[in-house]
Amino acid sequence: MTFYSPDLPTDDYGDDKPHDECGVFGMYSPQPLDLAWMTYLGIFALQHRGQEAAGMCVSDGDKFHVEKDLGLVTQVFDERRLDSVRLANARVSIGHVRYSTTGSNLRFNAQPLTTRTNKGILGLAHNGNFVNAREVRNRMLMEGALFATTNDSEVMLNLIARESHMDLVEATAGAMQQLRGGYACVLMSRTALIGFRDPNGVRPLVIGQRDSGDGSYGGAYVIASEPCALYAVGARLLRDVLPGELVWVDHDGLHSMMVHPGKPTPCSFEWIYFARSDSSLDGVDTHASRIRMGEQLAREFPVDADIVVPVPDSGMGAAIGYARESGIPFDYGLYKNPYAGRTFLAPTQEARDLKVKMKLSPTSAVAGKRVVLIDDSIVRGTTSRQIVNLLREAGATEVHFRVSSPPIKHPCFYGIDTAARKELVASTHTLEQIRELIGADSLRFISERGLKEAVGGPGLCMACFNGDYPAGTPLLNDVDKLALEV
Amino acid sequence: MTFYSPDLPTDDYGDDKPHDECGVFGMYSPQPLDLAWMTYLGIFALQHRGQEAAGMCVSDGDKFHVEKDLGLVTQVFDERRLDSVRLANARVSIGHVRYSTTGSNLRFNAQPLTTRTNKGILGLAHNGNFVNAREVRNRMLMEGALFATTNDSEVMLNLIARESHMDLVEATAGAMQQLRGGYACVLMSRTALIGFRDPNGVRPLVIGQRDSGDGSYGGAYVIASEPCALYAVGARLLRDVLPGELVWVDHDGLHSMMVHPGKPTPCSFEWIYFARSDSSLDGVDTHASRIRMGEQLAREFPVDADIVVPVPDSGMGAAIGYARESGIPFDYGLYKNPYAGRTFLAPTQEARDLKVKMKLSPTSAVAGKRVVLIDDSIVRGTTSRQIVNLLREAGATEVHFRVSSPPIKHPCFYGIDTAARKELVASTHTLEQIRELIGADSLRFISERGLKEAVGGPGLCMACFNGDYPAGTPLLNDVDKLALEV
Amino acid sequence: MTFYSPDLPTDDYGDDKPHDECGVFGMYSPQPLDLAWMTYLGIFALQHRGQEAAGMCVSDGDKFHVEKDLGLVTQVFDERRLDSVRLANARVSIGHVRYSTTGSNLRFNAQPLTTRTNKGILGLAHNGNFVNAREVRNRMLMEGALFATTNDSEVMLNLIARESHMDLVEATAGAMQQLRGGYACVLMSRTALIGFRDPNGVRPLVIGQRDSGDGSYGGAYVIASEPCALYAVGARLLRDVLPGELVWVDHDGLHSMMVHPGKPTPCSFEWIYFARSDSSLDGVDTHASRIRMGEQLAREFPVDADIVVPVPDSGMGAAIGYARESGIPFDYGLYKNPYAGRTFLAPTQEARDLKVKMKLSPTSAVAGKRVVLIDDSIVRGTTSRQIVNLLREAGATEVHFRVSSPPIKHPCFYGIDTAARKELVASTHTLEQIRELIGADSLRFISERGLKEAVGGPGLCMACFNGDYPAGTPLLNDVDKLALEV
Amino acid sequence: MTFYSPDLPTDDYGDDKPHDECGVFGMYSPQPLDLAWMTYLGIFALQHRGQEAAGMCVSDGDKFHVEKDLGLVTQVFDERRLDSVRLANARVSIGHVRYSTTGSNLRFNAQPLTTRTNKGILGLAHNGNFVNAREVRNRMLMEGALFATTNDSEVMLNLIARESHMDLVEATAGAMQQLRGGYACVLMSRTALIGFRDPNGVRPLVIGQRDSGDGSYGGAYVIASEPCALYAVGARLLRDVLPGELVWVDHDGLHSMMVHPGKPTPCSFEWIYFARSDSSLDGVDTHASRIRMGEQLAREFPVDADIVVPVPDSGMGAAIGYARESGIPFDYGLYKNPYAGRTFLAPTQEARDLKVKMKLSPTSAVAGKRVVLIDDSIVRGTTSRQIVNLLREAGATEVHFRVSSPPIKHPCFYGIDTAARKELVASTHTLEQIRELIGADSLRFISERGLKEAVGGPGLCMACFNGDYPAGTPLLNDVDKLALEV
Repeated sequence: MTFYSPDLPTDDYGDDKPHDECGVFGMYSPQPLDLAWMTYLGIFALQHRGQEAAGMCVSDGDKFHVEKDLGLVTQVFDERRLDSVRLANARVSIGHVRYSTTGSNLRFNAQPLTTRTNKGILGLAHNGNFVNAREVRNRMLMEGALFATTNDSEVMLNLIARESHMDLVEATAGAMQQLRGGYACVLMSRTALIGFRDPNGVRPLVIGQRDSGDGSYGGAYVIASEPCALYAVGARLLRDVLPGELVWVDHDGLHSMMVHPGKPTPCSFEWIYFARSDSSLDGVDTHASRIRMGEQLAREFPVDADIVVPVPDSGMGAAIGYARESGIPFDYGLYKNPYAGRTFLAPTQEARDLKVKMKLSPTSAVAGKRVVLIDDSIVRGTTSRQIVNLLREAGATEVHFRVSSPPIKHPCFYGIDTAARKELVASTHTLEQIRELIGADSLRFISERGLKEAVGGPGLCMACFNGDYPAGTPLLNDVDKLALEV
Repeated sequence: MTFYSPDLPTDDYGDDKPHDECGVFGMYSPQPLDLAWMTYLGIFALQHRGQEAAGMCVSDGDKFHVEKDLGLVTQVFDERRLDSVRLANARVSIGHVRYSTTGSNLRFNAQPLTTRTNKGILGLAHNGNFVNAREVRNRMLMEGALFATTNDSEVMLNLIARESHMDLVEATAGAMQQLRGGYACVLMSRTALIGFRDPNGVRPLVIGQRDSGDGSYGGAYVIASEPCALYAVGARLLRDVLPGELVWVDHDGLHSMMVHPGKPTPCSFEWIYFARSDSSLDGVDTHASRIRMGEQLAREFPVDADIVVPVPDSGMGAAIGYARESGIPFDYGLYKNPYAGRTFLAPTQEARDLKVKMKLSPTSAVAGKRVVLIDDSIVRGTTSRQIVNLLREAGATEVHFRVSSPPIKHPCFYGIDTAARKELVASTHTLEQIRELIGADSLRFISERGLKEAVGGPGLCMACFNGDYPAGTPLLNDVDKLALEV
Repeated sequence: MTFYSPDLPTDDYGDDKPHDECGVFGMYSPQPLDLAWMTYLGIFALQHRGQEAAGMCVSDGDKFHVEKDLGLVTQVFDERRLDSVRLANARVSIGHVRYSTTGSNLRFNAQPLTTRTNKGILGLAHNGNFVNAREVRNRMLMEGALFATTNDSEVMLNLIARESHMDLVEATAGAMQQLRGGYACVLMSRTALIGFRDPNGVRPLVIGQRDSGDGSYGGAYVIASEPCALYAVGARLLRDVLPGELVWVDHDGLHSMMVHPGKPTPCSFEWIYFARSDSSLDGVDTHASRIRMGEQLAREFPVDADIVVPVPDSGMGAAIGYARESGIPFDYGLYKNPYAGRTFLAPTQEARDLKVKMKLSPTSAVAGKRVVLIDDSIVRGTTSRQIVNLLREAGATEVHFRVSSPPIKHPCFYGIDTAARKELVASTHTLEQIRELIGADSLRFISERGLKEAVGGPGLCMACFNGDYPAGTPLLNDVDKLALEV
Repeated sequence: MTFYSPDLPTDDYGDDKPHDECGVFGMYSPQPLDLAWMTYLGIFALQHRGQEAAGMCVSDGDKFHVEKDLGLVTQVFDERRLDSVRLANARVSIGHVRYSTTGSNLRFNAQPLTTRTNKGILGLAHNGNFVNAREVRNRMLMEGALFATTNDSEVMLNLIARESHMDLVEATAGAMQQLRGGYACVLMSRTALIGFRDPNGVRPLVIGQRDSGDGSYGGAYVIASEPCALYAVGARLLRDVLPGELVWVDHDGLHSMMVHPGKPTPCSFEWIYFARSDSSLDGVDTHASRIRMGEQLAREFPVDADIVVPVPDSGMGAAIGYARESGIPFDYGLYKNPYAGRTFLAPTQEARDLKVKMKLSPTSAVAGKRVVLIDDSIVRGTTSRQIVNLLREAGATEVHFRVSSPPIKHPCFYGIDTAARKELVASTHTLEQIRELIGADSLRFISERGLKEAVGGPGLCMACFNGDYPAGTPLLNDVDKLALEV
């Protein structure tokens, strides 16, 4: 099923980065508050987690408004459109930004997904992936269910609706027990906000609260993918939702239920690249951990060079760390054109090359210098090769590539769009082959152990590096059987 | 749930007419045919049946494309968008134009509705209303079903999907037996086209076939609301789908099953106003029947006057008939501005007055004349009053209003949007009160018996005139109980 | 110079009609009045005179707002855009609708044209053509003038600006004396409204005034192409602007100057087709004259037949007249789809055929009948052929074509887009050849004398029929010399 | 005169920076080359010089295409629109990006400006301001000229057109001699490209050439505001256009004429902020000079602190320099949201505060630290105050503000939009007052002498710092006399 999407972005940004699929946001306010505007600010702060679609639901306990479309938050929500979801006595809201993985770039796959059920109208926004979604979906299809979208959320909502004898919280907890994978969701009815996180805590979810000091409004609870979304609406961080925990907010306040205790293995890429550098997740600050990754890299793989240059902006933190630990001066060797975005270039290699050139341009800093180039990851390697090439054309005498993540060799089943396995350069090439491919004088990736130390914390999902999937894998044999048929 | 619809039409056209809710169209071609284009032509020919939204599905047996949006057919389907649903080896397609009644003006309520089921992906387009849809929906909600839209079609699709042990045709027939009301639907899977009509044949549905003389293509079957849609794609009329009949087309050709034989009572308003004047339904030509209505009116309510003037264009046929029978000259006394359409006027009475004035303007024909003004119906009476007023301002010395339908006193439950009962002027006013209200020198409506004779044929639904509902009424007590809750 | 015009109409409507190029409108109000809204209503009433572009200027004596774009009035002026030109104390306004001839379909050729001059900022909207515009333009180019557009209006404005020693009225009168052709213009400064009409009165222009009975507003003067635009804003017709007259309105009221007395020869096509049937121009009512044309046709070219059928809507008046005079019953034999408009069909003959079919469809009235088909004109003959064909396919046994204008054999130089001379079927074919081409059983055009009598009045421009150009012709040798060069 | 601009950016970005008004680009290719595409790449590379509008002209010696609109380059030029200006045998092209100063945000003020003249059709794109434009314009108005726009370019084109006895190059040189100010322009006819720069070289302009090594294309000349635009189209930098020089390219190659030798005083802000950090102007590299500014600042105003933090991205170069010279560690203390752009916030102070918060967010780097905050300039001071505040809220114990430009006290008359003089905080406050206003612990601006040394080079325009205007000032008394009148 193909929906036509005029003037909308494609999957190809020429940036060769892993892509997080979503950011989620929810609020419950005991007092009147402009939740449409708050949610706008909240998902705007999460824009880096998904640029394909944006949406929100707002309810005042009676009316239930929803608005969503393909595009950036500021594109989807112009003044009129934001007004159209605004409610004078808003009580609950959720919001979502999406980078599409499942179901590709379909307009009707935009979230929040809304539906009428025996528990009233519900809205759901989720980040992550259920590894057994197809299995559950096929079973439900045979039982007579309909699926309007190819969205995982619809499976979750069907599971909740099926338990017509349970209340919403119980039914949601029941659905959590049937679905496996890495996920963090916010769910709203007209009168309650629910947040829940997978037993491994692969995807992040935090709780915050707004002040009620001046009395004009207050005490509103916020649940979001990252703390930056809390700050955006004037809330302070209370704590992370625990792995396997379900929390809900209603007129009685905040409640918690530990549905499925698990061993915490949050996604390491949140610290490497995804999360904003002003966010702290599961107690670990991202910016500080990135600097530690750079310091670790400098200790593990020192090199004799003149300047340390980050690939802007993703290599910034690690470059500062590398420069500090090594004593080699940090410099701004690559200008990044802030207007480089979505052009209509065809998805050819030539066009991807051009995109890199339209986006990055070497400054005079690199001429005649031995450069340590710092990036957070290498996926296909194509962009890396072009960057190295740009530096050489600008007069760099040596380019030593240092990467603040281990080599990505395995696909992610928990909501990250890396690339097909055969396109992962580290999955099919040796270190030396990659070095040669990208044309660097030397190439080094941080070690898994080094990354773990730099992040610290209880445990980490490093499945894309080592193939050890803590939250399960899809039953591959089962995947396409009925799915293809329908 | 409100979706924001930028630049989209409102429900108020200032024309004070009953509104049909939909037109449906479907094709099955045994040989490659540009079904996207054919469906475009087909639903364009049905545009008068719904101007709020348009959509189509096309399948080649494997791919299943769908495209729909709010707007006219030519607005929704520009060249790019039509291309996006086009398939080289298209086999089945359906299309829809919608005037929204149930679920109001929601983008996601646009049809065809598509869904994945245990019978594969299905597309459904329907015209009409199921009077027990809420009842069935509530029952299914309790059983764990989800309803993404407020569209009746979703109930039909859920019923079909629930019968996981039946094939598609059997399950559809089963669903027909559970739903009551007036409806005409087309349903497609990847490999078959189904059409079905309610047991009373309240809503029209016809079958046609394209020639295969020259061999380049041929034998394609077409199912549509009116014959004009058949002609638009080069097909000839085979016959009407019978009341209570289900027909389907697959690689073996056209098949029929009489699911639920009933007493035919097709909607009288199809001949009075809805159907195009080049359509013939259930064996009765619309244009000829409209002339007969005018002749009947002239016999029932003659008047001494100088000219017969139609309200363009809906009163045209009856005005010609009235002029012929009475011998009073026909004249074009009201200019209709063809560009009058959707402006952004607020829905105030003053704005409605202005709309009429922007749309209709008297010509010199009426000055100093005693005018017989012919219209097809009076709903609220507001527009009629303004038209009478326009004629007087232009110098008409007398205005005798003749209406080719009986007074509308009851709401329609079978897919026609008349107005709330309290807004139906004939429901709350006597004939003399209405005459006074609209300011005519005399006012007469055709008699029910006269209308019946003018149309001829087996039987007619005249529920909006006499409150006798042949296809049942909603269980009003039951309507809003759970519906309001969710 | 090509401007890109997304989603905008092309020149081809498949209607094979002559196209008027423009409608003009202007208002001057001594008291605060919502002139933006009034001008919207005024140009909306003139929409039939041009569908390519619309625009308006509004001034309050200080601010000077202008807004214009390609599209219909209701497309260009949505609520926001109309608000953007609105002024609380508006005093003067002009408006324009355009069917592009000169300069083709350029966005920047939309009118009103505005410019800063030594007489302050001016806005000009014009209908018609200056036959010596290129000559004057070339002369001014050599004197150092710039021309940003290919619009004739710019020549007029340059001529006005050159006379820096004269006041605006004098300079405008001076410009009138230098330009020849057929034109009707409205011109505004911040504080005055001017209207002027060519010495032959080829193009129409009327003056009206609003009541000031209730005191809330009053006395506002209106100048417009047709009276229907006066009525649209609540004004009554005062009189036609005389051929060669210049009128202006300022705080002292309405003034007149006869700049260039000439022999009145208004364009006969205004009565045949262009002007709305509720307009009266130069004292002659259009609807009444069309009925007289039909009566005249019936007298000149009677035929034995069963029904008289108009090509809707342009043949309506003449068909009524023909039916009356001949005694043959009038019938509605061709259904016109009101939604037929601008599709994205390629400009091929096949596509034009399809357009006719999408727009017109025969009713049951014609089956087995000998039909007199009435249309106002034949330009290329292609549409006529298709209509005749449609009638035959629907069972008409004979089709007798009667045309309420003489054969069009010559191009119009006064603002009408007929077609290139070689495309004028009557310029290259005999009557019998045309008849054969369009497939009619007989074909007759009204005589020039008959047309003159039907219209009546002082004189008529019939240049497109007989090649006698009362307002001069372009110096063809001179046309493209410098123009091509730049 | 107000044009309505739907969905278009306002002047307020909440960034409180001076705004360059334009970037210009031109190409002449002796051999077929896709100049539409090249110009797209060229103006895309200059996007930082203007975000309000973009446009280009392309000619093949015969056709002359132009396309321009409000918006970013990638917004204005989608695939279809770029195609619409493309010419198979393109020979000359110019392009423009605009930040509007004169004439505000008008759609019809977008450049290139095109016009028909006695020298054929011309296109002009300019950067800068003519200080005597109004004077010249008023003189020409009295002589009968028209001005459709409020754009300075129109004055230049009128001057060129007036000299009907001269050829294009002579007439352009003549116009240069009549206009004063700071400007850099590209001008094209169908067959030639001209570039010229004001006698003081206030605005930059460079010449480059593409390789013709492989023979497929070659020798195309490029004239642009910055070298980055040359690199973007595969050209190498030949040299800067000299102050007062006019260069032109035609089928005979590149030619030069020194029209008006002057004392070079290029705008110092090009190095401080405007020019991209990968550009080198008048022989001085921007990135290197920014590092020197930071080093100079550290020498002039050392401070005891823990980290050096740039305001991203404008303070980056100077922050690196300050860190190097001072030995204080550089850190990334402010996260910049790359999606922060144009929202629909009202232009209130509260909204501006919010914009800063939506754009910048402190990282963990600043907590408990004494911060040296580096920015390139302070205009109104409002943004600076908010940034200081953000840092304090995030736990910075001290904030020492260092600015790599001297205090801006005077308006720029040469094309830079600083702000009205009364809004320039340094024009109305003492250093201590500003420090207090922005809430910093200390505040220091680089000295004028220090800036001069850091940039080096022959001379610098520092009018906005010291009020010494090397290229003249407007005759203020004369400015609004006639201009206001028209």
